[in-house]
Amino acid sequence: MRNLKVYMSYRGTRYHGFQRQDNAVGIQNVLERMMGKLLNEQVTVNGCSRTDTGVHANEFCFSFLTNSTIPCKNFVRGLNSMLPEDIAIISCEEAPEDFHARFSCVAKEYVYKICISESKNPFMSDLALHYPYGLDTELIARSALDFVGTHDFTSFCGTAGLKEDNVRTIEYFKVEKDENLVKLLVKGNGFLYNMIRIMVGTLIYINEGKIPPDGIPQIIAALDRTQAGKTAPPHGLYLNKVFYE
Amino acid sequence: MRNLKVYMSYRGTRYHGFQRQDNAVGIQNVLERMMGKLLNEQVTVNGCSRTDTGVHANEFCFSFLTNSTIPCKNFVRGLNSMLPEDIAIISCEEAPEDFHARFSCVAKEYVYKICISESKNPFMSDLALHYPYGLDTELIARSALDFVGTHDFTSFCGTAGLKEDNVRTIEYFKVEKDENLVKLLVKGNGFLYNMIRIMVGTLIYINEGKIPPDGIPQIIAALDRTQAGKTAPPHGLYLNKVFYE
Repeated sequence: MRNLKVYMSYRGTRYHGFQRQDNAVGIQNVLERMMGKLLNEQVTVNGCSRTDTGVHANEFCFSFLTNSTIPCKNFVRGLNSMLPEDIAIISCEEAPEDFHARFSCVAKEYVYKICISESKNPFMSDLALHYPYGLDTELIARSALDFVGTHDFTSFCGTAGLKEDNVRTIEYFKVEKDENLVKLLVKGNGFLYNMIRIMVGTLIYINEGKIPPDGIPQIIAALDRTQAGKTAPPHGLYLNKVFYE
Repeated sequence: MRNLKVYMSYRGTRYHGFQRQDNAVGIQNVLERMMGKLLNEQVTVNGCSRTDTGVHANEFCFSFLTNSTIPCKNFVRGLNSMLPEDIAIISCEEAPEDFHARFSCVAKEYVYKICISESKNPFMSDLALHYPYGLDTELIARSALDFVGTHDFTSFCGTAGLKEDNVRTIEYFKVEKDENLVKLLVKGNGFLYNMIRIMVGTLIYINEGKIPPDGIPQIIAALDRTQAGKTAPPHGLYLNKVFYE
C-alpha cells in the first residue's frame, strides 16, 4: 500500500475542529467522505493534530494508506475540486511506510492573531480576536519569554485534557505587530489541550494587570490551572507549521 | 430633526445586498431594526448605494433623520454592540439638513480583489475572486485605460438595469499587484447596474484572448451588452470610498 503525506489549510469557522465526530462535522468527516468518492475506497485519515472548533490551519498535515494508483497531482486537483471553499489541499507526496502525520511530527508552530483596531473589522471577525482595549505588546513579549524552555505545563492545560506527562518544551514565543494586527508565534515539541489559548489568556491578564508581568514562573510552578488566565477564544488560533525530521 | 451621516463597513457574504427587502435580509433590514431599538423610533436609512448580494463595503455612507438626542459617540458604540460581527459602524456626525447619502454623493471608488495563488485560499474564499489561471496584470492595466473618461456604458450594464441616461465618467481604473492579490481600483461619478463586474469580466476575457487587448473602445461604441465579457462574481467587489463635496 502507498502511504501519502498531504498538506492542507482550512478556515475552521464552520467546523467542529479537525477530529471526525458522529453528531457534528469535523474537517476529517468532510475529507474522508470526499476522498472515499475520489479514490473509490474507504479511507482513514491520520491528522497531525486535533484542533478545536473554530481554530484554523495555515498548514496542517495528514497521512493515509491507500491502494489507489492515483498520481499525487491528480489527487490534489481532484480533491480540491470536491472540497468546499474553506478547505484547500496544498500538496501531496509519497511517504515512507512508517510515516504518520501525528507520531512523526517533531514540532509545531501556532500563531494567535489579535486585531487591536478600535472599531471592529467585519472581515476579520472569525479570523482574529478583537481586542480594542490597548495591548502593550512589549510588556507581553517580555512576559512570554518565561514560557520558553522545558516545563510541566499542567497550569496551562484544560482540565479535561490532563495526561500523565504534562512536560513540554517551548522553543520560542514571539510577539509581532503589524499595524492593527498582533501575532503571537509559538513553537514547541507538543502542546497540551487548550495550552496556547490559556497562555494567550494569561498574557491578556498580564496586559490588564490581573497577573504581574513576572508572574508566569510561579503559575507554572503551581501546577494549578486556576492560577493562569482565561482560555482565549478559538477563532484567533491557527496551526501555522508542522515539522518533520 | 437632526440629519445624521454615518460611515460603516460590512462583509456582504451573509446578506442579500444593502437594500431592504421583504423576503430576504439586506444590510438595511438589520440596520433599521437595530437603530429602531436603539433610538426608540422608526428609522428610514438612506444608503449611498445599492450593493449586490455578496458584495462588501470597506466604506459605506448612510444618512437618516431622527428626533433622538443621542450623542453621536453613543450612537456608534451602542449600534456596534447590537449589530452582528460582520457590520461595523465607523463614525457618525451631524450633517446639514439637505445632506442625503445617495444624492449628495459626487463620486465612488470600488476595488475588485482577485487572488491569483495557485492553490485556493480558504481565508479569502468569500473575499476575493480566485483566479489561478495566470493573470497578465500589465496587459489588463493597459486595456483598462480605455474605460477612463466619459462614455455611454450601455454595453457594461446588466440588462435589468438600463436607464435613459447611461453616460458615466470614469476618473481612473488602476491595477495594483501585491504578491498573490491583484486589486482593480475604479473611481467614477456613478456606476450602472453590474457595471464594474462586467468591466472586470471583460478584462478577464482580454486576459484569456477572447477579446483583443484594444477591444474596449469598440465594445463601448457598440452599446450592446453581449459584446462585453461575463459579469465577474460579486464576492471580489468592495465599495471602497464615497466622496462628498
